[in-house]
Amino acid sequence: MGDTLNLALIGAGRIGRVHAAHLVHRIPEAQLLAVADVNPAAAQACAEQYGMPVAVEAYQAVLENRDVEAVVICSATDTHAEIIEAAAAAGKHIFCEKPIDFDLGRIDRALAAVEAAGVTFQVGFNRRFDANFQRVREAVAGGEIGEPHLMHIVSRDPAPPPIDYVKASGGIFLDMTIHDFDMARFLIGSEVETVYTAAGVRVDPAIGAAGDLDTAVVVLHFENGVIGTIDNSRQAVYGYDQRVEVFGSGGSIRIDNNHPNTAVVSTAEHLRRDLPLNFFMDRYVESYVAEMQAFIDAVLKGTPPSVTGRDGRAPVVMGLAARRSFDEKRPVRLDEVQHG
Amino acid sequence: MGDTLNLALIGAGRIGRVHAAHLVHRIPEAQLLAVADVNPAAAQACAEQYGMPVAVEAYQAVLENRDVEAVVICSATDTHAEIIEAAAAAGKHIFCEKPIDFDLGRIDRALAAVEAAGVTFQVGFNRRFDANFQRVREAVAGGEIGEPHLMHIVSRDPAPPPIDYVKASGGIFLDMTIHDFDMARFLIGSEVETVYTAAGVRVDPAIGAAGDLDTAVVVLHFENGVIGTIDNSRQAVYGYDQRVEVFGSGGSIRIDNNHPNTAVVSTAEHLRRDLPLNFFMDRYVESYVAEMQAFIDAVLKGTPPSVTGRDGRAPVVMGLAARRSFDEKRPVRLDEVQHG
Amino acid sequence: MGDTLNLALIGAGRIGRVHAAHLVHRIPEAQLLAVADVNPAAAQACAEQYGMPVAVEAYQAVLENRDVEAVVICSATDTHAEIIEAAAAAGKHIFCEKPIDFDLGRIDRALAAVEAAGVTFQVGFNRRFDANFQRVREAVAGGEIGEPHLMHIVSRDPAPPPIDYVKASGGIFLDMTIHDFDMARFLIGSEVETVYTAAGVRVDPAIGAAGDLDTAVVVLHFENGVIGTIDNSRQAVYGYDQRVEVFGSGGSIRIDNNHPNTAVVSTAEHLRRDLPLNFFMDRYVESYVAEMQAFIDAVLKGTPPSVTGRDGRAPVVMGLAARRSFDEKRPVRLDEVQHG
Amino acid sequence: MGDTLNLALIGAGRIGRVHAAHLVHRIPEAQLLAVADVNPAAAQACAEQYGMPVAVEAYQAVLENRDVEAVVICSATDTHAEIIEAAAAAGKHIFCEKPIDFDLGRIDRALAAVEAAGVTFQVGFNRRFDANFQRVREAVAGGEIGEPHLMHIVSRDPAPPPIDYVKASGGIFLDMTIHDFDMARFLIGSEVETVYTAAGVRVDPAIGAAGDLDTAVVVLHFENGVIGTIDNSRQAVYGYDQRVEVFGSGGSIRIDNNHPNTAVVSTAEHLRRDLPLNFFMDRYVESYVAEMQAFIDAVLKGTPPSVTGRDGRAPVVMGLAARRSFDEKRPVRLDEVQHG
Repeated sequence: MGDTLNLALIGAGRIGRVHAAHLVHRIPEAQLLAVADVNPAAAQACAEQYGMPVAVEAYQAVLENRDVEAVVICSATDTHAEIIEAAAAAGKHIFCEKPIDFDLGRIDRALAAVEAAGVTFQVGFNRRFDANFQRVREAVAGGEIGEPHLMHIVSRDPAPPPIDYVKASGGIFLDMTIHDFDMARFLIGSEVETVYTAAGVRVDPAIGAAGDLDTAVVVLHFENGVIGTIDNSRQAVYGYDQRVEVFGSGGSIRIDNNHPNTAVVSTAEHLRRDLPLNFFMDRYVESYVAEMQAFIDAVLKGTPPSVTGRDGRAPVVMGLAARRSFDEKRPVRLDEVQHG
Repeated sequence: MGDTLNLALIGAGRIGRVHAAHLVHRIPEAQLLAVADVNPAAAQACAEQYGMPVAVEAYQAVLENRDVEAVVICSATDTHAEIIEAAAAAGKHIFCEKPIDFDLGRIDRALAAVEAAGVTFQVGFNRRFDANFQRVREAVAGGEIGEPHLMHIVSRDPAPPPIDYVKASGGIFLDMTIHDFDMARFLIGSEVETVYTAAGVRVDPAIGAAGDLDTAVVVLHFENGVIGTIDNSRQAVYGYDQRVEVFGSGGSIRIDNNHPNTAVVSTAEHLRRDLPLNFFMDRYVESYVAEMQAFIDAVLKGTPPSVTGRDGRAPVVMGLAARRSFDEKRPVRLDEVQHG
Repeated sequence: MGDTLNLALIGAGRIGRVHAAHLVHRIPEAQLLAVADVNPAAAQACAEQYGMPVAVEAYQAVLENRDVEAVVICSATDTHAEIIEAAAAAGKHIFCEKPIDFDLGRIDRALAAVEAAGVTFQVGFNRRFDANFQRVREAVAGGEIGEPHLMHIVSRDPAPPPIDYVKASGGIFLDMTIHDFDMARFLIGSEVETVYTAAGVRVDPAIGAAGDLDTAVVVLHFENGVIGTIDNSRQAVYGYDQRVEVFGSGGSIRIDNNHPNTAVVSTAEHLRRDLPLNFFMDRYVESYVAEMQAFIDAVLKGTPPSVTGRDGRAPVVMGLAARRSFDEKRPVRLDEVQHG
Repeated sequence: MGDTLNLALIGAGRIGRVHAAHLVHRIPEAQLLAVADVNPAAAQACAEQYGMPVAVEAYQAVLENRDVEAVVICSATDTHAEIIEAAAAAGKHIFCEKPIDFDLGRIDRALAAVEAAGVTFQVGFNRRFDANFQRVREAVAGGEIGEPHLMHIVSRDPAPPPIDYVKASGGIFLDMTIHDFDMARFLIGSEVETVYTAAGVRVDPAIGAAGDLDTAVVVLHFENGVIGTIDNSRQAVYGYDQRVEVFGSGGSIRIDNNHPNTAVVSTAEHLRRDLPLNFFMDRYVESYVAEMQAFIDAVLKGTPPSVTGRDGRAPVVMGLAARRSFDEKRPVRLDEVQHG
């Protein structure tokens, strides 16, 4: 392909506008031509803000645009699978926000369409591109800590989402832990065979009333023998808490949170630091740029994407298994839920 | 009682001599009168080193000594229960190294003897007296982090014990994790109802050949809703790794390892720190002094001991349940093994 | 004024292009119209890269452009004063890279021209806008550490500049320490009365042969009684080292370096972290954006700039005094060199 | 000599009792036979507490005791020189608390007496034996950071001493900074040629009224080209602050304070640590044991002591020069004050 890639944005909500800003300002190879949103005013506003010539309501319009070579899908989750299939049929390369879908059957049909079309497909697991997590992966893959034995992921949000969001979220495992499931696979470089979930409602009874959980530990049994734990809470009052430790035969690596500054204040009461970055957009802003750069590089160079369709599917399986483990109070093998 | 307490030591091995040193040099209220050891030469050497007038082979002799008010039991684990019963019958106050026994029936008989005699009885879970763990307990008990929701204990040895030791150890859960089971109960202040174990042999196949495990994660479901994880390895190449995090509605507290110094060296390659203290005796020396001081204070003041017989029994139940969970690949309720 | 500011860039070297990138991509209120450079090809390339319609050789041409409301001066230091005077005469607002000049007489004439013209004038001491230094200033100004008593600045470069650069640099105090002199005034909020310099050549004898120094400590006696020290080296093998501590009656605040990640790797040898950010552009990138945003805000809102002409002059006086202190081996009062 | 050393303590005040405790409980080779104190009741109480058979009023009595091989001098500073001379004449090995004296003539006479007698003489600069400072010395001496270029010592007390103590203290440089002067020579392994002092009264005007200072920076010009700074305050509200950084051609080493625990508490306001150890006895307890062990080892093995008479004299010269530098507002060469 050429030196630049013409893209269209589908979905002009919060995450869509984040990607638009990066495509316009941070990635020289990207040319953002059009935006579609079911809310035409939102599409129009987004087009004006980022200097796009075209704003439409129906995503089909951008797929028919022959100048558009790739789409960035940021629409509601339940439209992802359909748009992927249509975009693949139109021969567009596809970047799709996570999750692909909550239904394995629909995921599989979408991925089959992608494969049949031979287009590049990348899922938006942006955290893989964060400098801290990259460093952990590098250490594990490069043997810096020997053979990995144990992994512990801490992943806690600063505050729970609105209860309406919770109800439509697919549940904590498909909405929140899904990032950690992806991270676990990415860091260890092995598939998970079995999960065991211990969880409860500790933050807000309304979350429980909605049938969901807000506090959870998921144990992961990996094929390569690694034992992993994921520690989730919907509310860490001190802010966004995203840490990992991987322990192996040659040592360990652990990453801490990012803080807005490095200051330590010593007073008559204690030594203190300012809280970690509270908002996921501050914490992960560079990883969003890097994932999009990686997608564009993959398309332009014809190399495989760094987060594949299989990478998009596997965490959904894990999320389904994690919930079943909680419901049935027993470890659940992933092949029990593999096939929808 | 008076201002000083006359004690006898039973068992002049490594841990026995540690207690002897502390009783003689660090605890003014203690008067160490006698030592018994099945190896008379060891008893004699210990008596000379610490200025004790009496060294005998049979522990019964020190129990018959009317000047002896309390005994410190540091003999082989399989003799603990018998000596406890005899000491209680003789009206001696008892400090006993962990574990009381591996058999719940024998433990219960020993504890019944203690109760019948009305003597003070303390189990040697020294880590409760460590400054780091004390600080965590203080934070949890004092509400500094709100209601506890999650707990994570990292407990890794610098190197596995000799294989002969492993074979007689009762297995990793009763030999090593037992400290963490005690710590979990101490920190959270609630009982564990169910455990789930994920474990394997990653450090040394010989440990597996001996029927034991060397790498384990145990999930703890507490009565008060806290979910805990214990992360064990028999070999952390960087040294003795003993950390904890407790997370709650009002925040979290985490403790790191102790290092021999605070130096950070910056070179052209990296910033580095010297390894944490490698030997449990260096790491926990002050906690051994403090537990013995607490025992003596409890006896002299007639106050309840800080680590009771029940505290000695519960971690054994947890260890048995953890192993069963591993064997049966399912969560195990403690009441499944409560009664031997 | 309006909502946007039309700017021209004078000087298309490294720092000029940095500012161009920020004006174009990061600051919505900025409109970059033109660039001038004594090297016309450089001007042209810069204009193309950042989408500017005008590229010229002579800076006078952009001053004559009536659409240009403000200039960003990034040309060679010895042209700053002349361009400031011309830009002020043309009624343009001025952002000028540090230092204004090495000659106090020329500085004073330039600042007089600015004052006469009544234009906004800001000097490029970007570090004031860095999140770490901002946090220290906030603590001092807000009384978080009480009355300040002592200040210590560590400021070490990863490697010395080329020897030809050194020869034309004005010497370490006007080239490197000048940033620290500005930081000292900014953090403490008081003027320096007297300096004492201890310095030497420890990194490279060629620097000494060029009449300069590469290792220095400068003691600052502030009017408000604070005693400050600046610790400089031209070569820290572990990377760019920029730390500060301010100590006061109510406590202290200290800031550490920024690292590319938060990872700690534990091995059988040591615990280690990756080196701090090595390149000043990585370390301070956000502060360059923030200083330019502040300049544009000051112009658009008609508020005083955050780094004034006086702030540009004072560190030059301190640099001249620091060198005289070294030459004469005695403390030097700033009023000894105040008047050129 | 033999395997044990018979000692007498001269001075049963706070520091004397600390040494007594260590000699009795921590150092097997030591046999503490006698104690002398101008307050006979204090001598008697000390003898009883540590099980010494002899308690006397006049130090001469213990010097006449032929069983006493070495003395530990902990009496008032103005008696040190006289007792050293008498002890040397009596052929006793001598451990003497710092400072030897404030008067260089008296110091020189005392050291001449020691030399004539050929006894072992060690000065009580205990901080040399602290694990943190030892680690820095090891790094510098072993070339771990290349050739040293810069050194920065932070040394701040938690609170000023009573004003009566201040009046008799010899001034901040001879009372407090003297430890840092010794540390500077020890860490760098080179002599100081010139000092420059910047200082003031910021903590308590009463200290100024007594003719003393409470806040000071002293610049040290070492023979080997290293430039050092010492940063002192009589009051750090957050506790005892004892840190060092040495920077060299191959990197740097820095040490931080010791804390009572490693806990980090995260709350909705900030992350915090408990304050560093506040009391010098907690901070340096192990260094007091180690210095005494080193003295006894030197006597028993006939090896040179690790802190010599010259090491006791040099910091006094530096203290006198530092004060003269402050009074005369100029750098002062040590040879200006070398000869009393």
